[in-house]
Amino acid sequence: MGTTKYVYFFGNGKAEGNAEMRDLLGGKGANLAEMTNLGIPVPPGFTISTEACIHYYANGGYPEGLDEEIDRNITNLETAVGKRFGDAKDPLLLSVRSGAAISMPGMMDTVLNIGLSDESVVGLAERTGNERFAYDSYRRLVQMFGNVVLGMEHKNFERILAEKKESRNVTLDTELDSGDLKDLVSKYKELIREETGREFPEGPREQLKMTIDAVFRSWNTERAITYRNLNHIPHDLGTAVNVQTMVFGNMGTDSGTGVCFTRNPATGENRFYGEYLMNAQGEDVVAGLRTPVGIDQLRKDMPEIYRELAAIRQKLEKHFRDMQDMEFTIESGTLYILQTRTGKRTAQAAVKIAVDMVGEGLIDKDIALLRIEPDQLDQLLHPMVDPKAEVDVLAKGLAASPGAAVGKVVFTSHKALEWAERGEKVILVRLETSPDDVGGMAASQGILTARGGMTSHAAIVGRGMGKCCVVGCNDIAVDEEKNQFVVGDVVVGEGDYITLDGTKGEVILGKTDLVEPKMTDDFRTLMGWAVSAKRLGVRTNADTPHDSGVARNFGAEGIGLCRTEHMFFGADRLPIVQQMILADDKESRKNALDKLMPMQKEDFKEILKVMKDLPVTIRLLDPPLHEFLPKTAEDMEKAASHIGIPVDELKKIVQNLHEINPMLGHRGCRLGITYPEIYQMQVQAIFEAACELTEEGYRVIPEIMIPLIGHINELRFTKERLIEAAQKVMERYCTDIEYMVGTMIEVPRAVVTADEIAEEAEFFSFGTNDLTQMTFGFSRDDIGKFLPFYLKEGILECDPFVTIDQNGVGKLIAMGVTKGRSTKPDLKIGICGEHGGDPASVEFCHRTGLGYVSCSPFRIPLAILAAAHAAIKEKNAGS
Amino acid sequence: MGTTKYVYFFGNGKAEGNAEMRDLLGGKGANLAEMTNLGIPVPPGFTISTEACIHYYANGGYPEGLDEEIDRNITNLETAVGKRFGDAKDPLLLSVRSGAAISMPGMMDTVLNIGLSDESVVGLAERTGNERFAYDSYRRLVQMFGNVVLGMEHKNFERILAEKKESRNVTLDTELDSGDLKDLVSKYKELIREETGREFPEGPREQLKMTIDAVFRSWNTERAITYRNLNHIPHDLGTAVNVQTMVFGNMGTDSGTGVCFTRNPATGENRFYGEYLMNAQGEDVVAGLRTPVGIDQLRKDMPEIYRELAAIRQKLEKHFRDMQDMEFTIESGTLYILQTRTGKRTAQAAVKIAVDMVGEGLIDKDIALLRIEPDQLDQLLHPMVDPKAEVDVLAKGLAASPGAAVGKVVFTSHKALEWAERGEKVILVRLETSPDDVGGMAASQGILTARGGMTSHAAIVGRGMGKCCVVGCNDIAVDEEKNQFVVGDVVVGEGDYITLDGTKGEVILGKTDLVEPKMTDDFRTLMGWAVSAKRLGVRTNADTPHDSGVARNFGAEGIGLCRTEHMFFGADRLPIVQQMILADDKESRKNALDKLMPMQKEDFKEILKVMKDLPVTIRLLDPPLHEFLPKTAEDMEKAASHIGIPVDELKKIVQNLHEINPMLGHRGCRLGITYPEIYQMQVQAIFEAACELTEEGYRVIPEIMIPLIGHINELRFTKERLIEAAQKVMERYCTDIEYMVGTMIEVPRAVVTADEIAEEAEFFSFGTNDLTQMTFGFSRDDIGKFLPFYLKEGILECDPFVTIDQNGVGKLIAMGVTKGRSTKPDLKIGICGEHGGDPASVEFCHRTGLGYVSCSPFRIPLAILAAAHAAIKEKNAGS
Repeated sequence: MGTTKYVYFFGNGKAEGNAEMRDLLGGKGANLAEMTNLGIPVPPGFTISTEACIHYYANGGYPEGLDEEIDRNITNLETAVGKRFGDAKDPLLLSVRSGAAISMPGMMDTVLNIGLSDESVVGLAERTGNERFAYDSYRRLVQMFGNVVLGMEHKNFERILAEKKESRNVTLDTELDSGDLKDLVSKYKELIREETGREFPEGPREQLKMTIDAVFRSWNTERAITYRNLNHIPHDLGTAVNVQTMVFGNMGTDSGTGVCFTRNPATGENRFYGEYLMNAQGEDVVAGLRTPVGIDQLRKDMPEIYRELAAIRQKLEKHFRDMQDMEFTIESGTLYILQTRTGKRTAQAAVKIAVDMVGEGLIDKDIALLRIEPDQLDQLLHPMVDPKAEVDVLAKGLAASPGAAVGKVVFTSHKALEWAERGEKVILVRLETSPDDVGGMAASQGILTARGGMTSHAAIVGRGMGKCCVVGCNDIAVDEEKNQFVVGDVVVGEGDYITLDGTKGEVILGKTDLVEPKMTDDFRTLMGWAVSAKRLGVRTNADTPHDSGVARNFGAEGIGLCRTEHMFFGADRLPIVQQMILADDKESRKNALDKLMPMQKEDFKEILKVMKDLPVTIRLLDPPLHEFLPKTAEDMEKAASHIGIPVDELKKIVQNLHEINPMLGHRGCRLGITYPEIYQMQVQAIFEAACELTEEGYRVIPEIMIPLIGHINELRFTKERLIEAAQKVMERYCTDIEYMVGTMIEVPRAVVTADEIAEEAEFFSFGTNDLTQMTFGFSRDDIGKFLPFYLKEGILECDPFVTIDQNGVGKLIAMGVTKGRSTKPDLKIGICGEHGGDPASVEFCHRTGLGYVSCSPFRIPLAILAAAHAAIKEKNAGS
Repeated sequence: MGTTKYVYFFGNGKAEGNAEMRDLLGGKGANLAEMTNLGIPVPPGFTISTEACIHYYANGGYPEGLDEEIDRNITNLETAVGKRFGDAKDPLLLSVRSGAAISMPGMMDTVLNIGLSDESVVGLAERTGNERFAYDSYRRLVQMFGNVVLGMEHKNFERILAEKKESRNVTLDTELDSGDLKDLVSKYKELIREETGREFPEGPREQLKMTIDAVFRSWNTERAITYRNLNHIPHDLGTAVNVQTMVFGNMGTDSGTGVCFTRNPATGENRFYGEYLMNAQGEDVVAGLRTPVGIDQLRKDMPEIYRELAAIRQKLEKHFRDMQDMEFTIESGTLYILQTRTGKRTAQAAVKIAVDMVGEGLIDKDIALLRIEPDQLDQLLHPMVDPKAEVDVLAKGLAASPGAAVGKVVFTSHKALEWAERGEKVILVRLETSPDDVGGMAASQGILTARGGMTSHAAIVGRGMGKCCVVGCNDIAVDEEKNQFVVGDVVVGEGDYITLDGTKGEVILGKTDLVEPKMTDDFRTLMGWAVSAKRLGVRTNADTPHDSGVARNFGAEGIGLCRTEHMFFGADRLPIVQQMILADDKESRKNALDKLMPMQKEDFKEILKVMKDLPVTIRLLDPPLHEFLPKTAEDMEKAASHIGIPVDELKKIVQNLHEINPMLGHRGCRLGITYPEIYQMQVQAIFEAACELTEEGYRVIPEIMIPLIGHINELRFTKERLIEAAQKVMERYCTDIEYMVGTMIEVPRAVVTADEIAEEAEFFSFGTNDLTQMTFGFSRDDIGKFLPFYLKEGILECDPFVTIDQNGVGKLIAMGVTKGRSTKPDLKIGICGEHGGDPASVEFCHRTGLGYVSCSPFRIPLAILAAAHAAIKEKNAGS
């Protein structure tokens, strides 16, 4: 009782706190203390600790002794500054700011000029010889206090201000004179009286106490709680309160205020960067009514101050070892630093600064790597909407594949191909895409669908192509017949321009400026460090030689998932595939397969060649057969005549193959078991390709992966037959291929019996898409009706198809790993779901002891960096 | 080496083995030894142990010393019988029979008359003075030997026999004379020579050795292996070989042979029952050419023998404490018992015998209960196809709901209702059923569907109604337009009679005699014992007051699953439900719900009243909304005009609600969360019903169950709102209802996080249908394409929708139980999937520590008995 210290003083070159005390003093308070200790000119003040706030909530009031501690610190402050709080002649004025350990926009920000009253404002006017300044300061206090402390609406004050300006026939605040401001103060006070039934408190102690209380209360506003929920910040941290002497940049021509960065936050260039306004307050810089000037100008205008500021820049950056974002004020020729914090920066700047700082010896490579958020890399790999562009967001959907695209809207793949051929840039808009659309998607700049989730067809294909894609955009009503989509009363027709922002999931009306991606030497340097730092392997999901090449170029260490079915959709193959499906006996099915075999073989040959010396995991046919059959009446006619059967018969077969829940139907190894000849054909194609490449001198490493295994007997049945088929080919070619046979782990039952399955499997690859679907019982195609609501209500923290649900699906993965390795300690384990490109999921895979992740080509750098982060964090936690 | 004893002698009142030695001597050998020791006249012989067979397989030959042991035992046999093996004048003849510890129809059965040769047959003819008998015996030996030992086809011998009869212009074997038989022997031998390239062995030792080898080999024939796989019998048990002195019932008028049961195997009546033929062999009884006479006749014909046999009957039953099935032979006035084993019996007999034997003090109640297989009870609860009827099985499907039904085929529910109304018995045949068909199903005698699995709509509803049902009958091609179904070239049209056997899954052409079920006092007595013996609670799945009443009558201890959605399909409700679904704002949705509320309340009131004093678990709305919307164009027209919106709009809404995988879509609590007003209405209805009944003096115990929970937050969100709604009602009525709120555990994620979920749930109910679907990734609606193949190939041992997959789904259940109780030790846990009525699954639930199972009403007795079995087995294992 009373022995806990709650208040930490800083001022005159000495502070009771320091930068290490973030948890206790908040980020802002800790840095103010640190700067004070560094001898940087910080206006003196004190910080009330987060513990006081925690106590406030736990006990419904201040801890014992806090009032006295605040009093003592105000006395210290008065001594340090040489003014008295509430002095009628020369009042000490204070600012109060909240400041939690983790920056939180949901909380109260600032109340300025505390300590002014009807009495002391006169003193301030006399003391500064600037009545207008004094009354403007007072007006601001009353307004902020009313709004922030008393919870009144901002707009009501603004209305009074606007009326005053109107009556005075002026447009700018600055055009009001001291009389006007004096009048405003009394009008404001009247408003307070009316709305709250109480007087604006004239007493400075009362003002301060009420403001501190308001900061404490702001910790638990609805907005703050929501923000913490969304950002996984614990609710029991509490906020600190910073009480600091006011300094004024608007005291005359030798005063000013500005913001500067120790390096260029846009490019990363190691040059002092910033802007300021003379005779102005911080709000004026923000308001944008006057144009601030570049920091270089200060060198000319106030060389002494500039030198001092430049020295502080060096000192802070050296001290914090990171680019700083500083706020400064010059009051009557004296420089004050009001805040320093790590500066936000573009991805490009982040990379450059990190690499430069390693060169400068400021940080080591590990820290450099940790400075870059994997997600930021998207900015370096895809075109982005120019951050400076003003955009008219028409609708929001799921940000399925990052980047941005501008083009004319088309509603069919056919049109997309046709228009693209004649040189038009197009955006393909569909209700949802199907494998038939792949050509049109490739021809488009970007893809927009009204339905589907993060692992819908459009999303997966879009990411695979590195193409901007927004899916599940429920806001748009697509009318495929009328060739238009509608949002509210906006109708967008064929040929109209839209911009897609696949990074934010936004649909923007019209053309927007894009920023092209830049892959710099610094980026390559950083990626090299990441590769050295990481332990987890990073492979790619790729089905074509082109994608494989792109991925290898980005650093992929193999293919983790080559989906053989995507090769079945080619215009030259589909009819043969359909013939195979429609075959009513083994013989005619084999005939069709015999025609497919050489085609598959060529596919595999090209991919294996591109990926030479690296493992290539080839998944045998997975989707249900009906996916390959025509759906529309028109396509049925075409297919029937092509295959040579009556349309009615074809319709009957299609109807017969229809499944109520295709996701849980006749697919994966279930197909391979009931029609063994399909897998046999695929294995033959793989091994003929491998043997011929070996003869040509390539080293190829195929890994055969069997999908949808749920029972050891399925694996036994399939594996036995495919090893036999492989053996036959190798004997025919007199060649030995190094290969493996493994299984997807995507059915919950496979996890539960992973120890048994590991007896037969040489590797596991977690198919986290399907595993997530089955673990949650969520069809990725049908979650649009409830998942957005779940995310909004916080029932789920994130879309489990984007980030592995560690508490549920993740536990199953960990169980699968443990069980699998209990039988086969050196079992190779990876994942090949879309999660392989999500940083949090990559880190989870690292922690769970997986061997590799596999993701779409354009996510490779991101996965590599995330893997490096995981390894470094693990190392740091261990040391 | 050589110290192991492989051969066990029995004869002259003393045997080296006994009944306990089943594993070593097989069932037959052990019982022969036991009978010998009991002083029962068994023809002497010896048994070669299963260990010899195991050694034969392990080492590819006989163990050292076995040949010598066999020789020694033949010598013993010769001494006991007073004849010599291979003697030319009076040969000792032997039979050889296989006999494993577990009876196995896949194995070799018998070779008789070993020891006969061209030489000794003459001696036998002379010795017996019956040349025809001697050559007939020889002919049988050569034929059996050729077939069984040399592996030749039976039909080739039969062809020669038929030719002989034709040439002699006779129809019966018995009409052939000794000359014919002699000729047959030489023709048979010629056939052996031609087909095998070797002579029929004349040497008795060679005959014996080759036959013993053949028995050993028969253990591993494909048929035997398949049988063991199907019946989960280990492959390393091996078979014993019984070598026994031949006795002949066809030696004259003082000889005979018969089969008898110690009690009536059809009724269970405690009266000696059997039949025999004088001057005949066992085969003649089986062949059916002469009609055997009842055992009572023997009392008159041979009173001495009858007395002896009756005494043996008493002795054996007292000794084995179970009804015995005995084979006997009278050779020249001497009685021999050739075999005794536990007799097969009808369900009715089984119950009567068990109850009677307890009364007689022969067995205790536990044993009596264990004597009845739960599955047998179906015979007592449903009409069955008369076992004596000759049936023409047209097609086979899945035996979805037991019993039998005869009726005229109809193809629509409409017709079913119409025809039933005018007094016709009908069988509803559909591609698959939907909730629209429930009325028609109720009006029908039985239901047959071409599609669907054991938990398809038809199967679940059929079982719920206790109505015979065959589903997934791929053999039939239903043409709903032509009102017919086709199997091969058989066309069955509307109005044609068929018989369904829901116990075997058979579709039978035409009318067949049925046996009506009989619920006897014995049955009630037995069920009473079962209720006392079991620990597991048994509840019912019931959605109507009628079903609830039936179940309560059968002994249900509550409702484990009351599906509220079934109440939504009533003709008076569906339009309102549709109105609710089509509502485009909360207000109009609430309007529709307000209309539904009183209806639901009445439903609940009636059910709660029927189940007074017992808990009633009510599951809130589960299926996706589109299930309630019209599907056909006709229904759409009707619904649209009823609701008052344009058809096009309705179509659009239906299309919009369409889901690709409805199983994994917007259903269960996902509906309750996105449309909280639906669950609120249901809870209001439940609690108003409960309050009003309480006022009327009933004790009601509703348990609210939330379906499809996968995340604790879903439960929190839902529970909070429904408790609020419940509270409101109770306050309004000033009544306190004892109630619980719990959750289904059916999503794998719920299992993995069961510890968290148990924090909020007051009970768990495993929804094993959906849990099986999601754990395997099997859509129960779509497994028809591969599950039959899986079962045939042994990839799965049983349909996981019939019997809980203990190794996969079962492990998840066990995990859910452990995790749930780790948070809440007294958590109430049950299951409410269809598995609740499967004996193996019930036993699993007992072992896993569940509190109760819940099953359809007609399965209640079965579940009670299975639960008793589980408890008794556990007790026995512990003691």
